[in-house]
Amino acid sequence: MTIRAGLVGLGKIARDQHLPAIERTDGIELVAVASRNAQGDGVANYPDLGAMLAGESSLDAVILCQPPQVRYHAARQALLAGKHVFLEKPPGATVSEVDALVSLARAQGVTLYASWHSRYAAAVAQAKTWIAERRIESVDIQWREDVRHWHPGQPWIWEAGGFGVFDPGINALSMLTEIVPEPVTMLSAMLEVPANRDAPIGATLKMATASGAPVAAVFDWRQTGPQTWDIAVETDRGSLLLSEGGNTLRLDGEVQVKAPDEEYPAMYRRFVDLVGDGAIDVDLAPLRLAADAFLCGRHCPTAAFED
Amino acid sequence: MTIRAGLVGLGKIARDQHLPAIERTDGIELVAVASRNAQGDGVANYPDLGAMLAGESSLDAVILCQPPQVRYHAARQALLAGKHVFLEKPPGATVSEVDALVSLARAQGVTLYASWHSRYAAAVAQAKTWIAERRIESVDIQWREDVRHWHPGQPWIWEAGGFGVFDPGINALSMLTEIVPEPVTMLSAMLEVPANRDAPIGATLKMATASGAPVAAVFDWRQTGPQTWDIAVETDRGSLLLSEGGNTLRLDGEVQVKAPDEEYPAMYRRFVDLVGDGAIDVDLAPLRLAADAFLCGRHCPTAAFED
Repeated sequence: MTIRAGLVGLGKIARDQHLPAIERTDGIELVAVASRNAQGDGVANYPDLGAMLAGESSLDAVILCQPPQVRYHAARQALLAGKHVFLEKPPGATVSEVDALVSLARAQGVTLYASWHSRYAAAVAQAKTWIAERRIESVDIQWREDVRHWHPGQPWIWEAGGFGVFDPGINALSMLTEIVPEPVTMLSAMLEVPANRDAPIGATLKMATASGAPVAAVFDWRQTGPQTWDIAVETDRGSLLLSEGGNTLRLDGEVQVKAPDEEYPAMYRRFVDLVGDGAIDVDLAPLRLAADAFLCGRHCPTAAFED
Repeated sequence: MTIRAGLVGLGKIARDQHLPAIERTDGIELVAVASRNAQGDGVANYPDLGAMLAGESSLDAVILCQPPQVRYHAARQALLAGKHVFLEKPPGATVSEVDALVSLARAQGVTLYASWHSRYAAAVAQAKTWIAERRIESVDIQWREDVRHWHPGQPWIWEAGGFGVFDPGINALSMLTEIVPEPVTMLSAMLEVPANRDAPIGATLKMATASGAPVAAVFDWRQTGPQTWDIAVETDRGSLLLSEGGNTLRLDGEVQVKAPDEEYPAMYRRFVDLVGDGAIDVDLAPLRLAADAFLCGRHCPTAAFED
């Protein structure tokens, strides 16, 4: 049986990633789109989720791609209507609201999937296996990109609850918590917030593994030229470098994996399997670390940012 | 067998509450104090936890009353030395570091107690029972006190990780999550941060119960004159008001309980029981809500604050 899905929030990530990935995935088809301003091709279009739920009685699943600040109410509405729900990352504006969605999905007997696309990058599984057989001595994360290129005209990302540079940075945290086999603890944070914005443009984090190995991270949205999405892990038996956001793997300097980004198709295969199994997949470890960084982090004012 | 305890951080809360409560509690005695500047009477004194652990080989438990920013390393050190640990609130500067302490306590087979003194206020248990038989329609929290009176000369409380007005406010969150029988979700927050400080002096929170009842809270550290620590709950069958920080209870306007504060003696009886049972008691719901408020909260600059 093919899952009849409706997508809410037809913005950049939906067009760049979700639509082509759904197209390529067996077992799911897009039948409707809800968007205030945009129209999907070859599907029924609605102005909002409420209208979509009312108009598409045979819808099985809802894919939520709007800004995180409005994700909770939409997810609650879809779950209460008995639909399976796919959440873009970050899965919500707070940890407690996603916890509430998990309880609701369980009560409704439907699938809830908190997607973390970076965990499906080509080299992540191999990195995890390699690290599992070693003792971690240190981890260093460098996540530097150009916000003007990746998030043009997205005011919500700069508002409270929009995560700022943690929007890409949480991808690094999602890989970190996937490849490190023990819990990671946030110890301190420094958040650089532009004078005219509510969310950080840069962040420096100090974390540790449960056994005490230091984990350092720098997130920066001001990088022009080549972009950097690297996680370096030093162990008792060699060093690992995940780069290109997890699609390239080097072990002791030698390239082991170098593959194109196939993250979203892999996530949609996962979602189809979850719906088939009636299962829930919500790991909040990356969101918890982000919340901890904001809780303990020092806000440092920095230069105003204009798009 | 009497628990031989050492206390770290001989500040205001230790002198006002911990020392008299330990004195009154059967099953525990204070044998040592570690403090950089202060000396305990009639006990062995040490400059820090390391010296105390080295000097008191028969110590059973460590009570941590220092600022939350340094709590984690001390707790880790005490647990690794095989001691039971009592944490003042908030139990740490981040949720993930307390999670790590729970795992460590479990591995070491010792007691870890994250104390929330407001949960032991005189009227909390009765309030919880009354609410459990009704449907909540709304909750309103007003937590207004004079920081100059309660936290004189405590610079750490204004630093990142020091919680600011969430230091008292988390007491309200600890009562809220005790008396409301379903999970509470943080939806949005506004944090007023003095121009010369890193932590909020005021906060306005919007939350909801899992069934959707609104929960509003105002924390304010600028209240002079009478102090306000109130939680009002409207239900389908009457209204409840917890005031005096949970030591007075009114039902439909009629006073039901009005008792003196006996919170710390009750917590020490609990700690003695936990050690006797080899149990862990760490509920992180209040700390999770605080982290969520910082994650989604808008920082609003406000007037500089001088002690």
